Amino acid sequence: MEGYKRFLFFLVTSLLLGFLSVLFSLVWVFHWREGLSWDGGAAEFNWHPVLIITGFIFIQGIAIIVYRLPWTWKCSKLLMKCIHAGLHLTALVLAVVSLVAVFDFHNAKNIPNMYSLHSWIGLTVVILFALQLVLGFSVYLLPFAPDSLRAALMPIHVYSGLLIFGTVIATALLGITEKLIFALKTPSYSTSPPEAIFVNTLGVFILVFGALVIWMTTQPAWKRPQSQSVKALHPNGGSPDVTEESSTATGYSNTDKSDVEMNSEAAARKRNLKLDEAGQRSTM
Amino acid sequence: MEGYKRFLFFLVTSLLLGFLSVLFSLVWVFHWREGLSWDGGAAEFNWHPVLIITGFIFIQGIAIIVYRLPWTWKCSKLLMKCIHAGLHLTALVLAVVSLVAVFDFHNAKNIPNMYSLHSWIGLTVVILFALQLVLGFSVYLLPFAPDSLRAALMPIHVYSGLLIFGTVIATALLGITEKLIFALKTPSYSTSPPEAIFVNTLGVFILVFGALVIWMTTQPAWKRPQSQSVKALHPNGGSPDVTEESSTATGYSNTDKSDVEMNSEAAARKRNLKLDEAGQRSTM
Repeated sequence: MEGYKRFLFFLVTSLLLGFLSVLFSLVWVFHWREGLSWDGGAAEFNWHPVLIITGFIFIQGIAIIVYRLPWTWKCSKLLMKCIHAGLHLTALVLAVVSLVAVFDFHNAKNIPNMYSLHSWIGLTVVILFALQLVLGFSVYLLPFAPDSLRAALMPIHVYSGLLIFGTVIATALLGITEKLIFALKTPSYSTSPPEAIFVNTLGVFILVFGALVIWMTTQPAWKRPQSQSVKALHPNGGSPDVTEESSTATGYSNTDKSDVEMNSEAAARKRNLKLDEAGQRSTM
Repeated sequence: MEGYKRFLFFLVTSLLLGFLSVLFSLVWVFHWREGLSWDGGAAEFNWHPVLIITGFIFIQGIAIIVYRLPWTWKCSKLLMKCIHAGLHLTALVLAVVSLVAVFDFHNAKNIPNMYSLHSWIGLTVVILFALQLVLGFSVYLLPFAPDSLRAALMPIHVYSGLLIFGTVIATALLGITEKLIFALKTPSYSTSPPEAIFVNTLGVFILVFGALVIWMTTQPAWKRPQSQSVKALHPNGGSPDVTEESSTATGYSNTDKSDVEMNSEAAARKRNLKLDEAGQRSTM
């Protein structure tokens, strides 16, 4: 892998920030707030930030970069797809539980639901995330979609995945802001008590975590290379699924569309030539 | 241009959303708030959302996609760089004036500065934006930087530009949330009065505007093509500045580094071959 040490630096830094974000969310709710429970009170609400940060941010971030880890490149593409989908499914489940917690809390306290910009964008992004997961599963894990469809949808799959991830982070920052304004009264948020500084810092950690994940994902040199010898364990038992890899790799719809028609040995040679000629790895 | 109609659809939709966002910000401050003035009161604060949305979001968005407009492809690269830099400079000036307005308002009303997550991220992103502008001007407009440096920095320039743009949008959403919570008391934000619905909608417009701009910018098929016949009017009067174009185009650091050493006719032929072979246009 080109720039392996730089990749490791980014990976370790992002994992550290992600881990610190989860830790900070727990310290926040246990040290300054009411802890965690499921009783319709503030401690039930607290599941919302903890589960969003753990599942919808940290686990989703790992799910996004999992193909980039060089020590997984010897694993089959199917296994990696299952891990990618499984981590996203875990993120979705935690996000849904966190939504239940906040609706439950609002209803118990007679607080209106869905009035804030945070709630508008947040619910929309959870629905879009679920649609993205269903679409991704149907097209890339089930054996029915033709290669042409897989290739055509890949740039959209990648873009919408990163857009959803970025929007989740923005929504989390909105939630942090709301909670600090509502919860900090004496002393107020504007007097910068320790809790405000601590949770603002959590917000910065989340933002930088997201920036690092997106940087790693869009670096062409760090893309999982196309398998030359390992036949991908495609669910339909067919040809190596280079189509998806190349489409993910290049993001070039022209190339994608022509590539899907090339499954012969000659096509493989042509592909190798292209890679050699252009020094082409992968991008988004 | 491949997919010209689709590009036009995205362009018109994004411009419409950007224009509507500016319009909504004006309707907000004139219809529901205190209008605009420069007297240390709430009407001075109101310059903050209006100038941020006009300059730091709408104008910055246009500055980002200006290279993609196909009817500018016959213009020299230098002219387009000047437009790109000029629009960004305009955005920065408006952002700085908007910061002065909000600090002035806070000081007049004895409201603390820099306590919220919005202010932390917002000030940081204005500073990063200014640094990005100075660095971009020094490297890509002044005639001193060697081609190798220009090519090496281009992926970082593009990524950090889009990261800053995305962060500005997230910060604007934080500001909208803060302002609605603070300003809406009777009736409160949580009762969803018309102003809350209107300004939440403004937030959604801003978010979708940003998503469309980033989509257009990362579509390889919509990249400004490399000039084959038109000599770029490079400030140092030298060779065509294909280096920057190809580095922007491919995002492949390997390719970038080798490309900077190729200025001969043979290199141009090799480049054309690569483009033909790989169907390669451009990505981030």
